[in-house]
Amino acid sequence: MTLLHKAGTMFFENDEIIEFDINPVILYEKGAFAVDARIYVKSGETSVAKPPVILPPVPDILHPKSIAVVGASKTPGKVGYAVFRNLLNFKGKLYPVNPQAEDILGIPVYKTLSDIPEPVEMVVVAIPAPKVPEIIHEAGKLGAKVAVILTAGFRETGEEGRKLEDELLRVARETGIRIVGPNCLGIIIPPLELNATFDVQSPLSGQIGFISQSGAIITTVLDWSISRRIGFSSVISVGNQSDMGFIEYLQVLDQDPTTYAIILYVEEIRDGRNFIKYASTMRGRKPIIALKSGSSERGQEAASSHTGSLAGSFETYIAAFRQAGVIPAFSLNEAFDIARLAVSEGYPRGKRTIILTNAGGFGVLAADYAEKFGLDMINLPDGVYEELNRLLPDLWSHKNPVDLLGDSNAARFARVFDIMIKFQNFWDIAIVITAPVAMMDPKNLAHEMIRLSRFTRSMVVGCLLGGDSMKAAIDMLGEAHIPNYQDLQDAFRAVGSIISSCVVNGYEEE
Amino acid sequence: MTLLHKAGTMFFENDEIIEFDINPVILYEKGAFAVDARIYVKSGETSVAKPPVILPPVPDILHPKSIAVVGASKTPGKVGYAVFRNLLNFKGKLYPVNPQAEDILGIPVYKTLSDIPEPVEMVVVAIPAPKVPEIIHEAGKLGAKVAVILTAGFRETGEEGRKLEDELLRVARETGIRIVGPNCLGIIIPPLELNATFDVQSPLSGQIGFISQSGAIITTVLDWSISRRIGFSSVISVGNQSDMGFIEYLQVLDQDPTTYAIILYVEEIRDGRNFIKYASTMRGRKPIIALKSGSSERGQEAASSHTGSLAGSFETYIAAFRQAGVIPAFSLNEAFDIARLAVSEGYPRGKRTIILTNAGGFGVLAADYAEKFGLDMINLPDGVYEELNRLLPDLWSHKNPVDLLGDSNAARFARVFDIMIKFQNFWDIAIVITAPVAMMDPKNLAHEMIRLSRFTRSMVVGCLLGGDSMKAAIDMLGEAHIPNYQDLQDAFRAVGSIISSCVVNGYEEE
Repeated sequence: MTLLHKAGTMFFENDEIIEFDINPVILYEKGAFAVDARIYVKSGETSVAKPPVILPPVPDILHPKSIAVVGASKTPGKVGYAVFRNLLNFKGKLYPVNPQAEDILGIPVYKTLSDIPEPVEMVVVAIPAPKVPEIIHEAGKLGAKVAVILTAGFRETGEEGRKLEDELLRVARETGIRIVGPNCLGIIIPPLELNATFDVQSPLSGQIGFISQSGAIITTVLDWSISRRIGFSSVISVGNQSDMGFIEYLQVLDQDPTTYAIILYVEEIRDGRNFIKYASTMRGRKPIIALKSGSSERGQEAASSHTGSLAGSFETYIAAFRQAGVIPAFSLNEAFDIARLAVSEGYPRGKRTIILTNAGGFGVLAADYAEKFGLDMINLPDGVYEELNRLLPDLWSHKNPVDLLGDSNAARFARVFDIMIKFQNFWDIAIVITAPVAMMDPKNLAHEMIRLSRFTRSMVVGCLLGGDSMKAAIDMLGEAHIPNYQDLQDAFRAVGSIISSCVVNGYEEE
Repeated sequence: MTLLHKAGTMFFENDEIIEFDINPVILYEKGAFAVDARIYVKSGETSVAKPPVILPPVPDILHPKSIAVVGASKTPGKVGYAVFRNLLNFKGKLYPVNPQAEDILGIPVYKTLSDIPEPVEMVVVAIPAPKVPEIIHEAGKLGAKVAVILTAGFRETGEEGRKLEDELLRVARETGIRIVGPNCLGIIIPPLELNATFDVQSPLSGQIGFISQSGAIITTVLDWSISRRIGFSSVISVGNQSDMGFIEYLQVLDQDPTTYAIILYVEEIRDGRNFIKYASTMRGRKPIIALKSGSSERGQEAASSHTGSLAGSFETYIAAFRQAGVIPAFSLNEAFDIARLAVSEGYPRGKRTIILTNAGGFGVLAADYAEKFGLDMINLPDGVYEELNRLLPDLWSHKNPVDLLGDSNAARFARVFDIMIKFQNFWDIAIVITAPVAMMDPKNLAHEMIRLSRFTRSMVVGCLLGGDSMKAAIDMLGEAHIPNYQDLQDAFRAVGSIISSCVVNGYEEE
């Protein structure tokens, strides 16, 4: 309560409303924005009822059965060509629409949306901006649930564009069709092989949902995600957020069982209070990681020129995020480091951490990072200490971090893992850190780490450090859903971020 | 003055000495520790003269002409085998020494050091600890300048080992031979193809000098340095620092013209005051980047168990580093990000920064990072603004960061670079940030960036973001000594670190 109160008031410092009830129903259920809230305003203790805002339901953009592409083109280099080509892999029904063309890439073209003989769920729009409202009106009348508008030239271009965008939203509301964009890259649903963007890349399928206010950031992330073997359940470019925005997309991904964690790149969240309110209901259930830009004045100016949005204060965003359990990230790499951990290992049961390493130097650094990022480096219980002491050479560290010494092979690690499995109730997180030494076969070690993960209910994280010599082992870990980090700090920061996001769940100091 | 005073007093909080004169002569010149210092102590203003400590000269460990390996072995798996095998590429004279063997890997073996008919400059020692002092005595008597002692089993193992190490140092002082180690991985001088370690990797040749208190960290860094194309002028494992320590190695690398920047991994610096004093003399001339471990109590305990060293307070180390112009890094990746910039671009003339990008979202993030890390995002002078305005499409950002827009190709960047070259006096640092879009040929862009770098005296940094599609272009930049970063934050942190380390050189706010 206090939490959301704080979050709400901080998020809207100039707002008259100072308190509101929490009613975590799923928003827009059956089409109504049904928040039955008591709201206290600063002028007194007057209780007022907020009038319900009637909005069309949030469409299930993750599972369209049929897609029409208005502005599909046979000319390479055009957006309407690129998006249609990308959609050719889509397993549902696909209809190109273009008054001029007769067929595109071998598929017969419809001159208008109305000519399509069957119902269409999703309409992808790639035609000049002035013609968009008319098409949206037509699509809505025909019963389409959602339009993905790639076209630019709206609010981001100035006053005239803003008027056009208002008109666009007006016709959408008339017919009940919902809008992704405009001025966006589109959406990608890798599990359906659905790529409704004009990007050249199609990412791997996975468990991360990525919602971004910058198309270029999506393009960039997709490019490196492939070589880093990072997969997505969905990628959504929000564009101008004329209609649907972060809160609606969050709702969609919350309900999607194939999405295990969500990354946001945010310049501006339109309806901040409800976003925070909704995000709070997901705390401890599905991690949300947010990279918020605009911490600098010049950055906010740049954001305003970039999407025409007005950004709120960075600090209030971050404070509200933290209070709602949304994990703030401060770079793209950091966001994906956290998400990789979240989709692989979920939330740990607690923060009691054990570090196992073959390298004293890394043990020292690891202990530092553990403290810095809020992991609890527990002392070894007597039973564990005694068994380790029997097993390991005399010079072992005799404490946590457990330095198994530089001459360790995978077999020595395996015996230590046996002890960790036997005494698994004393720890929640195990971080295995190795330097690439000659006597260690990294693939054998990976096998043993997979066993450690399978035979415990705890979080297992790899820091098999090194270059190409580690690649095969790291790939094995990846296939077994054990994340590996190439820099210790990245690993500990990711673990610490997950821990801190669910601290209210009751992790206790020892 | 104030700076060093502060550094010194902070570094040794319990020290009676509160002020001392700065006399930045090169230490140990001609064998004497010739600091002619006036020292003020807390009890009063009494001026005392510190008695000179006579030490043998610091040997030129970077250019040995002859090396003997005591304990060279023909048995794979032994340290004496691995180090001798690694040394086979050495272009100078190489002598295996082993009382048992007759030849090793085809090279005739000497039974003792004394049997070698010619003078030996460097002796590499890989025999059991108890026999080491005797060999060092023999090597010293024969005129060897330095012994690299790989053998473990000294101070790090407890009281008995400590006594053995004292004995080792005593016999070394008797004869004037200097010691690297003991309990170290050895040294590598890639430009000489000299690898006097038992590691399996030989790194690329380059301009970074790396001095590490952890052998495992060296092993790890070498492993990934190859795929990341990072090269070294020298790699030194300091081990127990029985005789030579960070200050002596710093001195060696300071005088080495092939070393452009130095990275330290530090658990403990023995003679902190003189280290800081010496490092201060290098400020603005040759960047020193230090990763110091032991920020946590448990980390300090681990360090103590790892090398037997007692670590000082982390905060005092960091404060002293900053005051001496040593750049603190907080992870290995960060240290190498800074060093890559330092060896490629040196110190910038100032901190006036211009950002050029094809991606609005990255422009926003970049402006944030610029503020966070102390880069000065200058306003565009009228002349520059007008030329950009003539050149670019209407929707360009009209300010710094300069968003050239998502449809930019390399030619548009080239025209903007022309303007930056023409008006090169208004900026010190240019950061070029691109998302991987279809119309941009990254190799063409790299060509143009190389031109920008060649035709200006300013710092040029690349953030060609993306995955494998950028690799060829990034390699081109690397060969032209333009560093590229795959995450914006890493780039801006590196630039900011270099700037802050030479702020006393007189960078002014606009």
